[in-house]
Amino acid sequence: MSIITLTTDFGYDDWYVGAMKGVILSINLKVTLVDITHNCPSGDIMSGAFIIKNSDYFPQNTIHIIVVDPGVGSSRIPLIAKLSNNQIYVLPDNGLLTLLLQKHSLVEAFAIENHKFMLNSISNTFHGRDIFAPAAAYASTGINISEFGRPINDLVQLSIQPIEKIENSISGTIVYIDKFGNLISNIHNSFINKKILLARLKNYTINQVGYKFCDVGRNESVVIFSSDGYIEIAVNLGSAKNIYNVEVGEKMIIEFDN
Amino acid sequence: MSIITLTTDFGYDDWYVGAMKGVILSINLKVTLVDITHNCPSGDIMSGAFIIKNSDYFPQNTIHIIVVDPGVGSSRIPLIAKLSNNQIYVLPDNGLLTLLLQKHSLVEAFAIENHKFMLNSISNTFHGRDIFAPAAAYASTGINISEFGRPINDLVQLSIQPIEKIENSISGTIVYIDKFGNLISNIHNSFINKKILLARLKNYTINQVGYKFCDVGRNESVVIFSSDGYIEIAVNLGSAKNIYNVEVGEKMIIEFDN
Amino acid sequence: MSIITLTTDFGYDDWYVGAMKGVILSINLKVTLVDITHNCPSGDIMSGAFIIKNSDYFPQNTIHIIVVDPGVGSSRIPLIAKLSNNQIYVLPDNGLLTLLLQKHSLVEAFAIENHKFMLNSISNTFHGRDIFAPAAAYASTGINISEFGRPINDLVQLSIQPIEKIENSISGTIVYIDKFGNLISNIHNSFINKKILLARLKNYTINQVGYKFCDVGRNESVVIFSSDGYIEIAVNLGSAKNIYNVEVGEKMIIEFDN
Repeated sequence: MSIITLTTDFGYDDWYVGAMKGVILSINLKVTLVDITHNCPSGDIMSGAFIIKNSDYFPQNTIHIIVVDPGVGSSRIPLIAKLSNNQIYVLPDNGLLTLLLQKHSLVEAFAIENHKFMLNSISNTFHGRDIFAPAAAYASTGINISEFGRPINDLVQLSIQPIEKIENSISGTIVYIDKFGNLISNIHNSFINKKILLARLKNYTINQVGYKFCDVGRNESVVIFSSDGYIEIAVNLGSAKNIYNVEVGEKMIIEFDN
Repeated sequence: MSIITLTTDFGYDDWYVGAMKGVILSINLKVTLVDITHNCPSGDIMSGAFIIKNSDYFPQNTIHIIVVDPGVGSSRIPLIAKLSNNQIYVLPDNGLLTLLLQKHSLVEAFAIENHKFMLNSISNTFHGRDIFAPAAAYASTGINISEFGRPINDLVQLSIQPIEKIENSISGTIVYIDKFGNLISNIHNSFINKKILLARLKNYTINQVGYKFCDVGRNESVVIFSSDGYIEIAVNLGSAKNIYNVEVGEKMIIEFDN
Repeated sequence: MSIITLTTDFGYDDWYVGAMKGVILSINLKVTLVDITHNCPSGDIMSGAFIIKNSDYFPQNTIHIIVVDPGVGSSRIPLIAKLSNNQIYVLPDNGLLTLLLQKHSLVEAFAIENHKFMLNSISNTFHGRDIFAPAAAYASTGINISEFGRPINDLVQLSIQPIEKIENSISGTIVYIDKFGNLISNIHNSFINKKILLARLKNYTINQVGYKFCDVGRNESVVIFSSDGYIEIAVNLGSAKNIYNVEVGEKMIIEFDN
């Protein structure tokens, strides 16, 4: 019983994800399908990369389909890749693996070009259904991923906002905002070895530092580590996104105790 | 292992779909449940018909529950139907099969009226849980669909916007708008045997014709075939719905090269 | 093959629910996962209680995870409980079982404190992934729920809006508003033994009483019993929430025929 997960920007309103699942189940009925999300912002590859970074919680040999594919139908390469976490990723080679490749190394990757493992008719606008879904389904039946096409050694990678250490502070970027409006930065706890004093965001100073949301009062802000190990700014029972009117890409500075 | 898919207008916020799945699993635990969408616009039978038209991607003998049922509790007939694609449809007889019946013929259909295959207590407002879910679950256990009730020969069908050929053009209608804001018409590629020159929509002219979204620049419009074979108007990395402020029902004209 | 359902306020946009499912499948691959909803309003325990009240439609021994947990990381107790409907509930002890406990008695409940049944590393902000998901998964493998920790006898319960009988009427409260905008009250049909004449809501009088939505004309209001047995105010093919501009907590009065 293989697991195939699906992460897309197709939304929940249409038949697109259903068609992908129909294709998969037509090839391999003995598969457990898991939706990660289909609400990745349309065409936002970095958000897709952030979401799929958490795929480590799945068992080894899980196959992950990720379709955030603004270049569908162009020359970008459909890819099947194995990382050192022993999981398989089926996705366009457009940078979606950027953040996972900071944690795990690439074991091997192949272009999906063998028509045996695609639908008979390939549209120009829906490779999720015509190429990625069947590739994942065939891989789940035990087809070795080297059968799909030629090896690809250099994957496309997105440029990443750097974090900077300046004297007694670290400067980073808000890279993801979740459903609760929590502002998640790219500053990982592995960069932090001193007591955090406060965070600066736009013209605001957040000087309550805590461990959990309810360490502060209702509608108060707290600097906290996300469940993923990154510094985030949260508002207890409220939305930091709304209170600070912040979008992804905003700078954030963390200052330490002397 | 049978597959049962669910398509409804119940949304993702409440317990309604969960209750249907609980009912199904109480009757047959060995079933693979697949959500197509639960965001069909409330009571919009034509959108439901459009969504379920893509059920062909599922394996034969898949059972599809479709509950877009503004007449729930009235005299409209709960139906179980088999089409020539060898798939089973469980749904109110209110026109939801209209578009599928353009592609496939009706093999047989029966009213769901045998109380053996319903919940013990039938509400007036939630036949999805009380009638359609148990009918699909019993069908998945191998009950012949003729056991459910009397045969129904004439299904309710919705009237369909016609497409018109006028000299060197075809006039059609926008019949579906997807999550990306793509405007999907009822003009199928089987009606087109000449080079498309442009599309007219309201007072706008779209004169870029392409094969894929990224054939045009960011925020530019393109006339394209949808993954389903219908003419659609899309905006690369943007929303045609928002740019042209269009709703379902809007007329569209395609003009051909001379 | 065990069933595990998930009800949360994590939404459909992020990776949180996916991570929970990955954790579950890493512990027990032979499990059927069912999403009830992840759109419970953030931190709204009463809505969570209302949604999970419908878990009776699942087979016995189903395990339900409910994570609406504004106090995550605080001293509130992670709980695994069995009710007299022979179903298992895995959730924070914050009142989420309040409404279920009106229908079913508590058989036994235990704190989840045995680290054998948690992830190795426990965050302060995501016990859904670190505590509740693994607890449910281990319970689904046959671990007796008494193994999880010390018995808990008194569960936290929310205070409930009372209903009042006054002469020829009953006064209650709107306790849930669904996707269609139906206003569901806390007045159950077991309290009603006379013919309903009308409902009063704010300054409005709704004097059409029916059995199904389409008993009244389009956009007309009807007093009706919900599929769950509670008095609700609905608008045929429209939204009572929008028409009456009502939020949860609004009073409603039902008057009977003399």
